[in-house]
Amino acid sequence: MARTLAVLAFGAQAWAQLEGRGFPDCSNGPLQNNDVCDQSLDPVTRARALIAEFTVAEKINNTDSTSPGVPRLGLPAYTWWQEALHGVADSPGVNFSDTGDFRYATSFPQPILMGAAFDDALIKDVASVISTEARAFNNFDRAGLDFWTPNINPFKDLRWGRGQETPGEDPYHLSSYVHNLIQGLQGDDEKYRKVTATCKHFVAYDIEDWNGNLRYQFDAHVGSQELVEYYMPPFRSCARDSNVGAFMCSYNSLNGVPTCADPWLLQDVLRDHWHWSSPDYWVTSDCDAVQNVFLPHEYTATREEAVAVSLKAGTDIDCGQYYSQNLPGAYAQGLIDDADLDRSLIRQYTSLVRMGYFDGTSVPWRNLTFDDVATPYAVDLAYRAAVEGITLLKNDGTLPLQISNGTKLALIGDWANATSQMLGNYAGIPPFFHGPLWAANQTGAEVLYARGPGGEGDPTTNNWRPVYNAAKEGDVIVFVGGIDNNVESEGSDRVTMAWTGAQLDIISSLASYGKPMIVVQMGAGQLDDTALLKNENISAILWGGYPGQDGGRAIFDIIQGVVAPAGRLPTTQYPAKYISQIPMTDMSLRPNATSGSPGRTYMWYNEEPVLPFAHGLHYTNFTAQIKSEGPSGYSSNSYEISSLLEGCSEPYLDRCPFQTFSVDVANTGSVTSDYVTLGFLAGTHGPAPHPNKRLVAYERLHNVTGGATATAALNLTLGSLARVDDQGNTVLNPGDYALLVDIQPLTTVNFTLTGEATTLDHWPQPPAERVQTGDYFVGGYGSGAPYQLQVPTEV
Amino acid sequence: MARTLAVLAFGAQAWAQLEGRGFPDCSNGPLQNNDVCDQSLDPVTRARALIAEFTVAEKINNTDSTSPGVPRLGLPAYTWWQEALHGVADSPGVNFSDTGDFRYATSFPQPILMGAAFDDALIKDVASVISTEARAFNNFDRAGLDFWTPNINPFKDLRWGRGQETPGEDPYHLSSYVHNLIQGLQGDDEKYRKVTATCKHFVAYDIEDWNGNLRYQFDAHVGSQELVEYYMPPFRSCARDSNVGAFMCSYNSLNGVPTCADPWLLQDVLRDHWHWSSPDYWVTSDCDAVQNVFLPHEYTATREEAVAVSLKAGTDIDCGQYYSQNLPGAYAQGLIDDADLDRSLIRQYTSLVRMGYFDGTSVPWRNLTFDDVATPYAVDLAYRAAVEGITLLKNDGTLPLQISNGTKLALIGDWANATSQMLGNYAGIPPFFHGPLWAANQTGAEVLYARGPGGEGDPTTNNWRPVYNAAKEGDVIVFVGGIDNNVESEGSDRVTMAWTGAQLDIISSLASYGKPMIVVQMGAGQLDDTALLKNENISAILWGGYPGQDGGRAIFDIIQGVVAPAGRLPTTQYPAKYISQIPMTDMSLRPNATSGSPGRTYMWYNEEPVLPFAHGLHYTNFTAQIKSEGPSGYSSNSYEISSLLEGCSEPYLDRCPFQTFSVDVANTGSVTSDYVTLGFLAGTHGPAPHPNKRLVAYERLHNVTGGATATAALNLTLGSLARVDDQGNTVLNPGDYALLVDIQPLTTVNFTLTGEATTLDHWPQPPAERVQTGDYFVGGYGSGAPYQLQVPTEV
Repeated sequence: MARTLAVLAFGAQAWAQLEGRGFPDCSNGPLQNNDVCDQSLDPVTRARALIAEFTVAEKINNTDSTSPGVPRLGLPAYTWWQEALHGVADSPGVNFSDTGDFRYATSFPQPILMGAAFDDALIKDVASVISTEARAFNNFDRAGLDFWTPNINPFKDLRWGRGQETPGEDPYHLSSYVHNLIQGLQGDDEKYRKVTATCKHFVAYDIEDWNGNLRYQFDAHVGSQELVEYYMPPFRSCARDSNVGAFMCSYNSLNGVPTCADPWLLQDVLRDHWHWSSPDYWVTSDCDAVQNVFLPHEYTATREEAVAVSLKAGTDIDCGQYYSQNLPGAYAQGLIDDADLDRSLIRQYTSLVRMGYFDGTSVPWRNLTFDDVATPYAVDLAYRAAVEGITLLKNDGTLPLQISNGTKLALIGDWANATSQMLGNYAGIPPFFHGPLWAANQTGAEVLYARGPGGEGDPTTNNWRPVYNAAKEGDVIVFVGGIDNNVESEGSDRVTMAWTGAQLDIISSLASYGKPMIVVQMGAGQLDDTALLKNENISAILWGGYPGQDGGRAIFDIIQGVVAPAGRLPTTQYPAKYISQIPMTDMSLRPNATSGSPGRTYMWYNEEPVLPFAHGLHYTNFTAQIKSEGPSGYSSNSYEISSLLEGCSEPYLDRCPFQTFSVDVANTGSVTSDYVTLGFLAGTHGPAPHPNKRLVAYERLHNVTGGATATAALNLTLGSLARVDDQGNTVLNPGDYALLVDIQPLTTVNFTLTGEATTLDHWPQPPAERVQTGDYFVGGYGSGAPYQLQVPTEV
Repeated sequence: MARTLAVLAFGAQAWAQLEGRGFPDCSNGPLQNNDVCDQSLDPVTRARALIAEFTVAEKINNTDSTSPGVPRLGLPAYTWWQEALHGVADSPGVNFSDTGDFRYATSFPQPILMGAAFDDALIKDVASVISTEARAFNNFDRAGLDFWTPNINPFKDLRWGRGQETPGEDPYHLSSYVHNLIQGLQGDDEKYRKVTATCKHFVAYDIEDWNGNLRYQFDAHVGSQELVEYYMPPFRSCARDSNVGAFMCSYNSLNGVPTCADPWLLQDVLRDHWHWSSPDYWVTSDCDAVQNVFLPHEYTATREEAVAVSLKAGTDIDCGQYYSQNLPGAYAQGLIDDADLDRSLIRQYTSLVRMGYFDGTSVPWRNLTFDDVATPYAVDLAYRAAVEGITLLKNDGTLPLQISNGTKLALIGDWANATSQMLGNYAGIPPFFHGPLWAANQTGAEVLYARGPGGEGDPTTNNWRPVYNAAKEGDVIVFVGGIDNNVESEGSDRVTMAWTGAQLDIISSLASYGKPMIVVQMGAGQLDDTALLKNENISAILWGGYPGQDGGRAIFDIIQGVVAPAGRLPTTQYPAKYISQIPMTDMSLRPNATSGSPGRTYMWYNEEPVLPFAHGLHYTNFTAQIKSEGPSGYSSNSYEISSLLEGCSEPYLDRCPFQTFSVDVANTGSVTSDYVTLGFLAGTHGPAPHPNKRLVAYERLHNVTGGATATAALNLTLGSLARVDDQGNTVLNPGDYALLVDIQPLTTVNFTLTGEATTLDHWPQPPAERVQTGDYFVGGYGSGAPYQLQVPTEV
C-alpha cells in the first residue's frame, strides 16, 4: 500500500522532478529505447542491454567508485561510495545540506554499543530507519543507493582502532546481528531492494598500524580452522544467509594473497561455496586496495597486472581511480578482455536495476522526504539503542541514584560535555547532541562541571583545581571519560589498554571524598578497570561506548533508574598487561605455550579476565530455568547424529534445527528490567583443544517486571553444535555438550551426541601453494622475502 | 648605548604604559618599599626581600607554572610557560593578536633542519631574533620572559614523535648548537638576561607512546657510560658551559626514579657537579610530570609525598596545578617546610629580577615594538636558515635545474601546497606561508599542481588521475611529500620508517615518465630512500625537514641553483627494517648480539645505513687539506698525556685545548657553495668497544667560489679525545687517534697519545640502590613489580 501511495503522491510531475535529481531519464533521451528501461524484463537482462552499448573506454571509465556514467547514452554519473554505519554518514556520495532540509540524519550509537544490547529486533529496526532516511536522501539527490556498511570483522584485539565499528568479538553474535541489520537495510520488498548493504572487510582485517604493520600491507596468517570458525562466520551470514547485495575486499592479504586479488576467496568461497551468485551481487575494493595489490603488497610486478588479477578475481569496483588509470594498459596487454569488464559492469548495473534506479516513481520509498528523517520514532529509537547497550559493570547499590532539584552534581571528565565525541567515526550530522552535561542539566541538579584529563593521558595541567573544586562541592560525583577517537581510530590502533596515570589519579582522588561516585567508561576498546573495581569508594561503573546523539540522556536515565541497564559487554575486558602477551599481528585464537599467547576472546583466553565477555549487571535479580518439557522434546539428553540429520530440508546442513530451548526468566527483584538471555555451549566434543565455551543463541527479553517471568527461546541448530576441523570442515561430533544460560550459569542442560562424526560443510581448500609462513612482521620494503609474482593461473 | 636609547625613548610616560602591561609597579603601590624594587641590590637579595613577605599560602600558590602573584603585595600574576622553539610560539603565556600589531612573529625552520645547517653562528643569529621578538611581545604584555626551549634530547631513535624539535642525533653537535642558541636567547648583557631559556627534557626522554610505553610512565634504563657520553652532553653544555637560566625535568624516570623527584640528578649532577648554582637558576617540571611521580610512576604512596619529594629534589616550578593542590597537605604533614618553598621561590624571583622584571625602563630592549618583529632581516634569516639546512641526498646532474617561463612544472605531493605543515610543532603564527606551490608560481613556470598521497599512506583514492595528468603534461616533475605532524608528533611516535606503498607507487610512476624528476622528502624522521636512490629515473632527492615560513622558496631556490645546497643529514638514514631490530625502549647505543640490536647512531650502528649521518651533496666538488704546519704545532703526531694537561687553566679539564686544526677547503668546481667542514675522530683508544667514529668539531664555510680556497678551524679539546668509562668518568686515554675530515674523508691526520690514562671528570655516582633492571616493557598498572616507595632520605 505504501508503494501505491508513493506513486500516487508523486505522479508525472514528481517524476520530472526526479529526473533533475540525478536519476536516469527513461522517458526521454537516449536511454528510453534501451531495454534497461523496460521494467517488464528481469534485472540482469536490462543491465546487459545497457552495458552492450558501452565502448571499451566507457566500460573502463565506469569501474571506479565514482562512475562518470555515459553521457552520450543518457546514463548519469553515479557514486557507489556512501556510508551509513550508524546512520546516514558523511561520505563521498552523501551530501548534507548546510541549511533547511537534509541538514541532519538520525545518528545511532556505534555498533559496539548496539552490539552490547544483544537485541536483534532492535538492530533490524535501526537499520530500517537508516535505509528509510537513506532513501529520503536519495530521492533528493543527496545520496546514492549503495552503502558500504556494515563493518563486520570480529573485534578480536581490543587495540584495533576500528573495533568501535563492529558489534564485538563473538562470531555468532556478529552473524546474528548482521543478518538482522541487512534485512533492515535492504528491506523485504520482493521486487526492489531498499538500499544495498556491503559487508566489509572480507576478510581477516583488524589491524591499522600496530608497530608499523600498516593495514595496506599486512599479511594475515590464518589457518583454515580458525578462519572458518572465527573470521568467516559473519561474512557467511552476509553472503549465504542474508543475501547482502555487496561485499568489500580488504586491505590486508590472507596467507600471502591480497584479498582483492584472490579468486579462491572471491570466487571459490564467496560466490561458489556460499552461493552468493545472484547476477546483481558485486564486490568493491576497499579504497585503493587494488593499488595496494601492487604496492605495498608487491603481489604483482606491474600496475596492469594488479588491476587485471583483481578484476578477474572478482573485484568489480575499485574504490579509487586505479582501475580507470590502469585497466587500459591491462586491456592493451591482453591481461583482461571485454568479458571481464562486462561481468563486473553487469553486476553493478543489475544491482542498480534491482533498486529501481531506472524505474522512476514505480519504486517504493519514492515518496519519502525530509519529513521521514529523524522522526520522533527514529529519535526515540536512537535513544533506546543507547539505553539498551549501556552496560553496568559495577554497582554497590548506589545506582539507581535519586537526583533531585538542588542535588549538587559534580560532572567531571573529558567526555562530560561530549558532542561529536559521542558519535565515533563514520558519522553523519545528528539533529542534536544531548551529551552528559546537557542531560545532567535536565535532571534539575545543580551541575558542577569540570573537564578533567583527556583519554590520551595528556597533561591536565590546568584542570586540577576545577576538578577538585567540583568534587568538594558536589553531593554526587559522576566521572565520564575513557578513550575516544583520538586514541582509537581508523588508521591508528591503541597502544595501551590502561587508564592513564592522570585519569587514575583524578578518579581515585574523586573517590577519596567518599561521596556517591560513578564512573562512566566511554569508548569502544575496553580499559582495564581493575583499580576501579577494587576501589570501594567507587560506587558504580557504567560502560557507555559511543552512544550517539542522545547518549547523555541515556546515561543519566540509567543513572537515575528511569530505565534499568541490561547491556552486556560485547568484548572481554583484559588486564592491561595483555598487550604485552600477544602482538596484534598474531591472528591465532588458541593459547600458544611457545609464543606465550594466553589466547584470544572468551572462547580461548586461558587467564582471568578483568571482566568477562557478556558481563553486565542489573538493578534487579534474575533466575532462569529451562522448561522441563516442550514441543521439541528436549527432555532427551542423548541424540544420535544420523537421526538429527534425518529429514532436514535445509540446503546447508549447519542450518538444520537441533532444539529450541525455552528458558523461563524470572525477575526476583522489584525493578522492571530487560534481560539478555545468553546460551553458551561447552563440553568435550570435536577436535582438541576445546574452547572454554561459545555463544550459540541469545534473546533479549524486554520490560520484565518485578516478580514476573518471561520466556526466551534459544534456537540451536546443528551448526550450533558443530566444530571446525583443521581443514576448515564443519563437523558434527559425538561427545558431551552443555548448554549454559548466562555467564555465571543460572541453569544448565547437559546432553550427549552419539554416532559417527558427520561433516556438515566441506570447506573449499585453498590452492596448495598458498603461502603459510610464520613471519608476522612486515617492516618495510626490500627487506622481506624475495619478490615473487603470484598470478592466478587463469590470467 | 642601546639601553640608554631605550630609556630615553620611553621615559616616564612609557613606564606608566608598562605598568598597564602586567609589570610590577615599583613606583607606586605596596611594592615600592620592598627591597625587590631596589635596583642597587643584588638580585637574590631583592628576591629574598619579596618572598619574605609571602604567607605560606601565598608561597604555595606561586609554585605552579601560572603564578597568581600576590595582589596584596602588588605582585602581579605571571605565566612561566612560554614556548619559542623556532620563533615565538603559541603557548599559555604568548598571546598573538587577531589583528594589527603582534598578530605574527618570525617562524624559523624546525631545529632538525637548522641542525642540518651545522652553522653555529646562524643558530645564534636566529636565537637573537627570537629573543628580540620575544622582548617586543613582552613589552606589550603579550608574552612573559621565560621560554621553555630548547628541546635538546638527542634524536637517537627516528621513530620519536618529537625528534623534529631537536638538532639531530649527535651529542657534540647538540652541545655546540645549544651553546650558541642559549647565547642568542639569553643575550650578552652583563646585568640583564634577555630572556630565560629552558633546557629540556632532563634527561633520557625520547619516547612518546611506542607500543604502549607512554612517556608519562616510561622508565629509561641507561648505564652510566652511555648516560654520560650520549644523553648528558647537551645538558652539560646548557648548565656548565652556557649558563642557561632554567631546566625542565622530564616525564620519564631514569633507572627507576622519576627525574623530577631525583635529587641525584637535580642536585648532585646538575647543581653540584656542573656548578649550575647561580641563585636565579630554576627547574620546572614538564607539564604534570610531578603528578606522574604519583601516577603512573607510582614512585610515592601519596600525592603529598609526590610533591614533597619533587620540591625537595629541586623541581622549583610545577607545570600544572599539582603543587598548589597538594603542597598544602605536604606542608601540614611536615613533608616540606618554609625553607623548601623559599628556596624555589627565591630562585624564580631572582630570575625575574635578573631579567629586569621589576626595573621598568632601566631594562634594555624596553624600546622594542612590533616594528622589531619579522623585520626584513629576520625574514631573510628565516629563509637563509631553511636554505642552509636543506640537504641534497641524490643528484644525477639534473640539479640545479633551469626553470624558465613556460616550463611546465608538475608539482605533486601532499606537501606541494604546504602552509602550516611547514612549521612543524611548537609554532607561532608566521607573517606568511611561502610553500612549494607559492614558490613554484614565482619561477614563471606553468605549474600543474596535484596533491598525491598523504604521509600516512591513506588512500589517495581520487587523487590518481590528477597526479597522472600533471605528470603527463609536465616538462619537469617535482614531488614534495614524506611525513608530517600527522605521522610524527608530540604524544605519538612513528611506527614505520618506510615510504608508504601509495607514495612509492606514485613516485615510481612519476619517475617512469623519464622526465627530470625531483623528490623533496619532508618531515623530521628520515624515511628509507633505498628504492628512490636506486631508481635511475629519479633525478634528485632533497630533504626539506620542516622549513618554516619561507620553506617553499628555499626549496625552489635550491632546485634552480639560486643558491647551492650544503646541508648535512643530522641523523642517520636507516633501512626500514631497523624498527624491527630494536625496540624504542632499548636505550642502549652499542650493538648487542644477545638482543640483536645493530646499535644506534652513526657512532655504533654496525650495519650499512641507507645514507650516513652528515650525508649531503653539493653542486660543486670540494677537496680539503689539513695545513701541514701552524701556530699550534700539530705537525706532531705523538702527544704525552701529562704534557697535554700541563698549564691548562680551564676549570674543567675536558675544556683544555688540544689543537686547532686548520683545514684548507678548495672548491674545485665552478658553483659558489657553502661547505660544512666536519671533523670526526676514530681510533683504538679507551674502553672497548670503540665507536665507528665521533664528531668532535665542525665549521660551516660560506660562499666558497669556484676555484677558491677557504679555511676552517677545527678546535679540538682534551674532551674531544676523551672517552667515558663504565662508571661515567671521562678519561683521556693513550692510544691511536685519527681525525677524519668529512664522512668519506677528504683528508686524515693520525696521531698517538702516550702515557697514563687520566681522568678528566669524575662522575658523581648515583645511589647504590638505584634500580637497574632489564625489564623494558611497561604495560599497565598492577602488573609490574610490587610497589615500593623510594623516598629520598632527606624527606
